[in-house]
Amino acid sequence: MDTYKKIIEDIYLDVKEIEDTGKVANYIPELSLVDPTNFGINITTVKNENFGIGNSDTKFSIQSICKTLSLTLAYKLEGEKLWDRVDVEPSGNPFNSLLQLEADCGKPRNPFINAGAIVVADVLISHLKNPMEDFLNFCRETSNIPDLNYSEKVAESEKNTGYRNVALCNFIKSFGNIKNEVDEVLDFYFHICSIKMTCKELSNTFMYLVKDNFKTQTGKEVLNASQTKRINAIMLTCGFYDESGEFAFRVGLAGKSGVGGGIIAIHPDEYCIAVWSPKLNKKGNSYKGMCFLEHFTTKTASSIF
Amino acid sequence: MDTYKKIIEDIYLDVKEIEDTGKVANYIPELSLVDPTNFGINITTVKNENFGIGNSDTKFSIQSICKTLSLTLAYKLEGEKLWDRVDVEPSGNPFNSLLQLEADCGKPRNPFINAGAIVVADVLISHLKNPMEDFLNFCRETSNIPDLNYSEKVAESEKNTGYRNVALCNFIKSFGNIKNEVDEVLDFYFHICSIKMTCKELSNTFMYLVKDNFKTQTGKEVLNASQTKRINAIMLTCGFYDESGEFAFRVGLAGKSGVGGGIIAIHPDEYCIAVWSPKLNKKGNSYKGMCFLEHFTTKTASSIF
Amino acid sequence: MDTYKKIIEDIYLDVKEIEDTGKVANYIPELSLVDPTNFGINITTVKNENFGIGNSDTKFSIQSICKTLSLTLAYKLEGEKLWDRVDVEPSGNPFNSLLQLEADCGKPRNPFINAGAIVVADVLISHLKNPMEDFLNFCRETSNIPDLNYSEKVAESEKNTGYRNVALCNFIKSFGNIKNEVDEVLDFYFHICSIKMTCKELSNTFMYLVKDNFKTQTGKEVLNASQTKRINAIMLTCGFYDESGEFAFRVGLAGKSGVGGGIIAIHPDEYCIAVWSPKLNKKGNSYKGMCFLEHFTTKTASSIF
Amino acid sequence: MDTYKKIIEDIYLDVKEIEDTGKVANYIPELSLVDPTNFGINITTVKNENFGIGNSDTKFSIQSICKTLSLTLAYKLEGEKLWDRVDVEPSGNPFNSLLQLEADCGKPRNPFINAGAIVVADVLISHLKNPMEDFLNFCRETSNIPDLNYSEKVAESEKNTGYRNVALCNFIKSFGNIKNEVDEVLDFYFHICSIKMTCKELSNTFMYLVKDNFKTQTGKEVLNASQTKRINAIMLTCGFYDESGEFAFRVGLAGKSGVGGGIIAIHPDEYCIAVWSPKLNKKGNSYKGMCFLEHFTTKTASSIF
Repeated sequence: MDTYKKIIEDIYLDVKEIEDTGKVANYIPELSLVDPTNFGINITTVKNENFGIGNSDTKFSIQSICKTLSLTLAYKLEGEKLWDRVDVEPSGNPFNSLLQLEADCGKPRNPFINAGAIVVADVLISHLKNPMEDFLNFCRETSNIPDLNYSEKVAESEKNTGYRNVALCNFIKSFGNIKNEVDEVLDFYFHICSIKMTCKELSNTFMYLVKDNFKTQTGKEVLNASQTKRINAIMLTCGFYDESGEFAFRVGLAGKSGVGGGIIAIHPDEYCIAVWSPKLNKKGNSYKGMCFLEHFTTKTASSIF
Repeated sequence: MDTYKKIIEDIYLDVKEIEDTGKVANYIPELSLVDPTNFGINITTVKNENFGIGNSDTKFSIQSICKTLSLTLAYKLEGEKLWDRVDVEPSGNPFNSLLQLEADCGKPRNPFINAGAIVVADVLISHLKNPMEDFLNFCRETSNIPDLNYSEKVAESEKNTGYRNVALCNFIKSFGNIKNEVDEVLDFYFHICSIKMTCKELSNTFMYLVKDNFKTQTGKEVLNASQTKRINAIMLTCGFYDESGEFAFRVGLAGKSGVGGGIIAIHPDEYCIAVWSPKLNKKGNSYKGMCFLEHFTTKTASSIF
Repeated sequence: MDTYKKIIEDIYLDVKEIEDTGKVANYIPELSLVDPTNFGINITTVKNENFGIGNSDTKFSIQSICKTLSLTLAYKLEGEKLWDRVDVEPSGNPFNSLLQLEADCGKPRNPFINAGAIVVADVLISHLKNPMEDFLNFCRETSNIPDLNYSEKVAESEKNTGYRNVALCNFIKSFGNIKNEVDEVLDFYFHICSIKMTCKELSNTFMYLVKDNFKTQTGKEVLNASQTKRINAIMLTCGFYDESGEFAFRVGLAGKSGVGGGIIAIHPDEYCIAVWSPKLNKKGNSYKGMCFLEHFTTKTASSIF
Repeated sequence: MDTYKKIIEDIYLDVKEIEDTGKVANYIPELSLVDPTNFGINITTVKNENFGIGNSDTKFSIQSICKTLSLTLAYKLEGEKLWDRVDVEPSGNPFNSLLQLEADCGKPRNPFINAGAIVVADVLISHLKNPMEDFLNFCRETSNIPDLNYSEKVAESEKNTGYRNVALCNFIKSFGNIKNEVDEVLDFYFHICSIKMTCKELSNTFMYLVKDNFKTQTGKEVLNASQTKRINAIMLTCGFYDESGEFAFRVGLAGKSGVGGGIIAIHPDEYCIAVWSPKLNKKGNSYKGMCFLEHFTTKTASSIF
């Protein structure tokens, strides 16, 4: 841990100073109002060591990072049949997404693009008695944060500007790949994306993707070994929108980003690291976050490749 | 090695018996005439142990697997500037390829789709005095096979049916991303794809992507550590056409396939394994090869995730 | 008229006998339940002569033919500014429609594809006090059919299966090109498409696109001369989905088809002819209707070219 | 004719003065070096009256206008089978062209986009003994210009920059829809596009699309009545690239433009009018030419609609 700590401190100071050419997401007020100078990092190792720096204890909107949790629960409940509903291939240019959805008859390319995460939400609704409550309980159990909650404000804002997501969900339903009511699916989906966590909470929460026999505080297994590997594989090939190849190339870890400026990255059997800096590069991933992680895996020589 | 050996033998016998729903590539005679029942495997470990089974000593057309070698040499010669000419992102649906090339102004999505491998060939021509000879010498040195050679017959066949590649090369040149004459670039490209090797030769050759300080017989470094990781990352995200996500998901190794039915797969710091079975699945990758590797990483629990 | 009459009778008998390889639209019960052997024709000339044959007095669902009436009223109310909201270009392959909508920033290619007709409905809502009632009154006035009405059953059916149209409308709204509530726009749009008429009523109604100084029974002008020409031009280039070029080529008249199997065709200063036969060809236009019209303009040598 | 003359003079003077926001085509020297202030018009009526104004007697590169002549000869020689090789549908966004070609299995959308004109050139080569000479003789006969000739300079320039056309031709050949050698087809195609004419020569030449029983000086029929109508229909729906709908809408005539800034427009049974002004609008059609023709058909109330 001491090595990691020293390296993180050094890179943190360096990257803090670089000019940030990114832009804060502004399509909903809750995202646009965040202080853009926030910069936090937290690492949790397989030995349960923990180290944070900067704004590592400040809550922020984790947005799409939470798609990893909804995917995890859907995979747990639906098993391998899940992949009949959503594929595991990178999606190429975002601009092709609707075209691809049409060519693929309504089966989204992967569970991390919006189309795929909406199908995952639909799968969860089909399995859960009280989807909103049950999913929240799963997140609380997995993260060990008993008061974790949705942000109604964020969910509401998404709803009011989410015409594209409404379009997407109806388009997929026209192919028969949404089984529940569009309104219910989207309401749930917007809530999933509304959760807030700190970097520290994030790196602790996703340890279930790092450790082989991870158990929650109450002794529950989240995923088995094979499922864990597969989620990590999807994160590596699809976790950063149209920049997934670049992340694998420059950073070399499985990971997932969110438009709130957060990134989690997984080194199986080693560590989970969470970074947060709100300004996004052109592909929609945290500018300083990407930068930090590239330096981090280079200096620690800890890519999975 | 004994564990690997036992597992390989078992899976080999199992997979040999399954019904092969794939089809042999038939666009050129040299590929269509191969015996479809060929099935060979060879593993080389970081300790230089070697084990082969089935037709592991039969030469076959490695086709696109050789794009890893041309990419390696181009990266060595051009350095990071190479990525201004070709990107490192998975390409999505094959069907979008020309559309994407247009949207991306002639910069191919990655070096393993045809468009990208053609640009890599162009980069090599700009650097090498005698491209054909010099590249062959690089391959001989890296593989330690002094009599390795192009198959003029295969190169000639490709040339006679390769209207799409001619289209592709001219299209990229219209954007200024091909610097040499189209005819020369394609002739070189077709020769690169014409090389033949055995499974054993393949798993030995690509050890430079497995070992950290790999040196050739004559003591030369092929790539440095950072470059090696990056080539592996591109193989993982882009090595299997439109099935790259599936390969990462099911197999969990960096790898590269060819339409001759060969696949190489890399576990950094552990081993390189080569599989060959000529019948291809719908996505153009060896049906039994994919099948074998999925079982292999499951039983050895040796995915990189 | 006598010439037209004789020719129509002859072709009617011929085409009635040919094998109809088309298929009745079946996405809503109201369309699928129609008797597929229905076949009717009615012509109205500039001299107000009228001739019908077959099922020319049977009401059927005119579907997209009614988009000509909604476009007419929107053009009347909004003037040339209408073309800032919707373009006048043929749309190419249907399969590109969403891609084109994205590339064109939410401006539909023309008012006859669904996307365009939905924008036209939105424009009408912005202008009309009681959109449903006011549009119906416009149709009654123009057609001189005082009891013309919406079919609630058809509108309801469309609503229940129209996920793609919901997707389309939300997608356009995400670009800001729908000003009213999605639900209201679609409800109105589905009602517009639900109107039923006979061939005779159709050929009478659309005489306002044939005669230069057409006045309704109560003496009102529908469109001025320049506007009339422009609607005819759009019908010629865009009236038959992906078969518009074929219709211009084979028939050579301005026209508009509907999935109910109806077609109206306009020869400026000469006549309007309406044909109805429910079975549709692969492009979604009446198989026998297209066939009849091709023979008709050939034998009467009355194409506009 | 006196009415036409007066109107042409008036509009000529008006349009001459307007600011021309277009740009001269500059991809080959022969086009970029033309004086951008050239502006000429010539009308030929069905009564063989002729009137020209401005630079109506200056030769310029007619470019794609000549595709009407090659299409005419191919239609004459191949008959209706021609439409198995090339479709008659407008092509939508230029940007989709390769995508459409792929979706349509190498059958170009219409004979006026480059892909289609290249297939037409291929059809001509299959029919003609000496394609270059025979086509030129056909043009000389039809235009009654005995010394009409190719511009070797223009053809050569096109060849040297035409990578996209080489790409296109090879791509179509990969689908089997080019029967002759790519080099020969393109060489012929580039020559077809290299012909120069004056406005006066153009409006005289294309009278075969205006008059019902047109005969050349030596008494030959060019096309029969049905074929003539069909060529006019294709010109109307496809003659102006991605602005064909707009031309039908604003001008209302069949027509064809070229990147040299020329436009011919046909009013069947009435007249052919040719306009030339080198600066092109964003869609690649003459800015002042479009402007002039819109005013002309408005003031003469002579659209075909």
